[in-house]
Amino acid sequence: MRSEKAPSIDLNCDLGESFGNYKCGMDEEILPSITSANVACGFHASDPLVMQKTVRIASENHVHIGAHPGFQDLVGFGRRNMSLPAEEITAIVEYQIGALNAFCTEKGVKLQHVKPHGALYNMAVKDSVIAEAICEGVAAIDRHLILLGPAHSQLLLAAEKYGLRTAKEFFADRAYEEDGTLVPRSKPGAVILDQEEAIARVIKMIKNGSVTAVTGKEIPAEADSICIHGDSPAALAFARSIHEALLAEGIRITSMDEIVP
Amino acid sequence: MRSEKAPSIDLNCDLGESFGNYKCGMDEEILPSITSANVACGFHASDPLVMQKTVRIASENHVHIGAHPGFQDLVGFGRRNMSLPAEEITAIVEYQIGALNAFCTEKGVKLQHVKPHGALYNMAVKDSVIAEAICEGVAAIDRHLILLGPAHSQLLLAAEKYGLRTAKEFFADRAYEEDGTLVPRSKPGAVILDQEEAIARVIKMIKNGSVTAVTGKEIPAEADSICIHGDSPAALAFARSIHEALLAEGIRITSMDEIVP
Amino acid sequence: MRSEKAPSIDLNCDLGESFGNYKCGMDEEILPSITSANVACGFHASDPLVMQKTVRIASENHVHIGAHPGFQDLVGFGRRNMSLPAEEITAIVEYQIGALNAFCTEKGVKLQHVKPHGALYNMAVKDSVIAEAICEGVAAIDRHLILLGPAHSQLLLAAEKYGLRTAKEFFADRAYEEDGTLVPRSKPGAVILDQEEAIARVIKMIKNGSVTAVTGKEIPAEADSICIHGDSPAALAFARSIHEALLAEGIRITSMDEIVP
Amino acid sequence: MRSEKAPSIDLNCDLGESFGNYKCGMDEEILPSITSANVACGFHASDPLVMQKTVRIASENHVHIGAHPGFQDLVGFGRRNMSLPAEEITAIVEYQIGALNAFCTEKGVKLQHVKPHGALYNMAVKDSVIAEAICEGVAAIDRHLILLGPAHSQLLLAAEKYGLRTAKEFFADRAYEEDGTLVPRSKPGAVILDQEEAIARVIKMIKNGSVTAVTGKEIPAEADSICIHGDSPAALAFARSIHEALLAEGIRITSMDEIVP
Repeated sequence: MRSEKAPSIDLNCDLGESFGNYKCGMDEEILPSITSANVACGFHASDPLVMQKTVRIASENHVHIGAHPGFQDLVGFGRRNMSLPAEEITAIVEYQIGALNAFCTEKGVKLQHVKPHGALYNMAVKDSVIAEAICEGVAAIDRHLILLGPAHSQLLLAAEKYGLRTAKEFFADRAYEEDGTLVPRSKPGAVILDQEEAIARVIKMIKNGSVTAVTGKEIPAEADSICIHGDSPAALAFARSIHEALLAEGIRITSMDEIVP
Repeated sequence: MRSEKAPSIDLNCDLGESFGNYKCGMDEEILPSITSANVACGFHASDPLVMQKTVRIASENHVHIGAHPGFQDLVGFGRRNMSLPAEEITAIVEYQIGALNAFCTEKGVKLQHVKPHGALYNMAVKDSVIAEAICEGVAAIDRHLILLGPAHSQLLLAAEKYGLRTAKEFFADRAYEEDGTLVPRSKPGAVILDQEEAIARVIKMIKNGSVTAVTGKEIPAEADSICIHGDSPAALAFARSIHEALLAEGIRITSMDEIVP
Repeated sequence: MRSEKAPSIDLNCDLGESFGNYKCGMDEEILPSITSANVACGFHASDPLVMQKTVRIASENHVHIGAHPGFQDLVGFGRRNMSLPAEEITAIVEYQIGALNAFCTEKGVKLQHVKPHGALYNMAVKDSVIAEAICEGVAAIDRHLILLGPAHSQLLLAAEKYGLRTAKEFFADRAYEEDGTLVPRSKPGAVILDQEEAIARVIKMIKNGSVTAVTGKEIPAEADSICIHGDSPAALAFARSIHEALLAEGIRITSMDEIVP
Repeated sequence: MRSEKAPSIDLNCDLGESFGNYKCGMDEEILPSITSANVACGFHASDPLVMQKTVRIASENHVHIGAHPGFQDLVGFGRRNMSLPAEEITAIVEYQIGALNAFCTEKGVKLQHVKPHGALYNMAVKDSVIAEAICEGVAAIDRHLILLGPAHSQLLLAAEKYGLRTAKEFFADRAYEEDGTLVPRSKPGAVILDQEEAIARVIKMIKNGSVTAVTGKEIPAEADSICIHGDSPAALAFARSIHEALLAEGIRITSMDEIVP
């Protein structure tokens, strides 16, 4: 029973999003605050040299590696919906995991998880066909990989269907509807701007298993990982604050590999 | 001692060079004639769906799979020299091998070899820095992979330095200088146009260990694999002819994995 | 009044869809049968050398040039819906028209029209925001350019709003609904497979101003241009047949520039 | 005679090198200090939206626009030598100029000049075939365009051969050999690190028509434009300092269009 031991949580962050001459993110600075890195694989961001370096610095910081596959849309950073056939989604997910795996093999580390990026993630949360296409690709590589996604999503349902391990992620800075889904960014109150409040919500979620929905109602909530950003000094400061606050509350910060069955 | 058993040879061919809507090559037709496929990895040609299909049909035909990494130059088909830093060559080779490996894992087949493509191949034949950058990338993935290249090349010297297995390839339709290197295409007599002559040269090379150089002098020559083309009906006909001729001469046609130590 | 002179029609065809080493289409062969070419601009297909050659051979055949801008999705050939902001659609349309215009300038020919390609075309037919984004880009370059699209489409409505000239195109091999829109390819009867029937429909449309809808009802129809394909020997044969049949019926085949006001 | 009026100089800077989500350069900040912008055209950097914005803000600042075409090598930022056939160099130069021209047309400004970027520039400085291939592309668009390059270069020789206007650029922060060519960056003393010295060299070059070569010898030097960087706060500070210093010396800062015949 998880309730009998110290509560544990993973902190995940997108990493390795630089590309050629273009620098992006504060990877070195965020690494000490996180336990899992979602590493871009060259389709929506990154390139082979960036991937190699990202795997190296993540493993040096004992941060576990996940693949962060996205649409092949560099100019749109993988954030624009694209209508791909399911079989092509499966193939691009396999390709990107395989490419990242090469650098994991080089460094002697094992790939821990897969988290789809951007539009691919958002589409898969709601669309079971896309979700299953992704999970089919992951399962074709290794059924022990963890699929990281939001609770109550088609993504995690599909992962279970394909026999993958799953990890639920919680967004510290986002409001939730009563059904446990994220309040869309287009709606007022979608983003939690107050850092203290965001941290308090995470701690309550971990300790009490609940969060206050945007309507004010308490709803059940649980997570294996908190999604952290590391692309600005403010995001970095928040990551450090939440890291410290979690430790101060006696919450163990460890990789999702040690948390999920 | 190889001389005591029936002489053996591998037949290798570039495969999986289609891209999206663009079809290229006669992959299904050439597969029965060859034993090893050099599969494009998405940089100079191919895409994830094409790679997946190519690995599938190759394995259905019991043809062994090799990675065929190239420069990221789709419009130039990887045939134009590019000045990349050595560390970037290493990284693009790892990336491409890893990506192809995903589809091999899916089909439960083991990657057999690596043969650099086009300009990357030609540069590595002569340039030890590029050759070593490639081999460093291959060795980082798996030291049991075979590096396929021409005899007397920096590519195979580098492969030995990195502890990789090596396979020498012979070009049936190309003339050789006295030092065992290819006569450049810009020179007269570089290409053997007569198919009967080309086949006879291959058989003599396998049986006698020699070939007639462009100067007329007999020079020693040995090979583990013959490079075959499959991108035109004429190339296909030649592949079938050489396949039949080799068998008729009692030469065993088998994958390089069974030939090289 | 158009009715007082000989009926005229333009024949348009997508051209210049090769890319680097990849050949596609039978451009040289189709050119004598058409009067307007929709030339790919390097985003969904083509490259600068292909564009240059296509403009050259089209102008040598006295075929008028149109830009055929598409989404930046080479692997999908621009056939997959992408969710781009309106301002970005405007910018990619301008970019592609400008690029093609360079080769028109080189050859001393004037760009005649713009026809969006693939998914961009299909989306713009129904979506006024996308249609207006395209037309804003065209109008920013030259308000005398003709926008080529289907009758009853948001695309042509938007073109009129932006003060562009418009040309309606008719699909010889496609069935129409009673409201004048195309029967979706997913429905039975969407494609007219019989060539004689397809040609008869075109001639009736030009001479009588009507077409038989998929329901059997006669509906009004008019067009300035017929969309022709040139990517297979069968398509080529059809193009030649319809060209001859139109001439035999006394219908003048001329560029849309001479047809539309 | 130029000597009879106030000496004039243009200040040029590379602009519009951002790409999609990736920001690069301090374009808004550098614009008030310069008179000519070399705008990236989407091959080595930039995208249609960035180009559109760059042309807009440059024209708002009365800065003249030049095309900055490069190799299609986004991951390498166009800085790696590529072996393209001459005819393809011509075509990619035309394509990129045309694409940028679209946004100039939109804003009602006239394209002033062309300056090849990165590896294409460096190769064209020394290689007459590449230089002529570039100039053939520029001339095909508009013979009144100015070709911007270093004095004593194959680039400017080729421009003259093709009847293009030419502008010589001087590098404030680089040392020169006795023959007027740049000291390669690999050699000691190649870069002038002291800002005061760099500014003094520029002023002496403009006023006296000479510069001190790396050997210590005074050599004749003249320029129509000074190459300025704007990609770091330090570069920005230097741009402002040299701008002020030139004005203080009574040197007129104006676009190259007003300087060269």
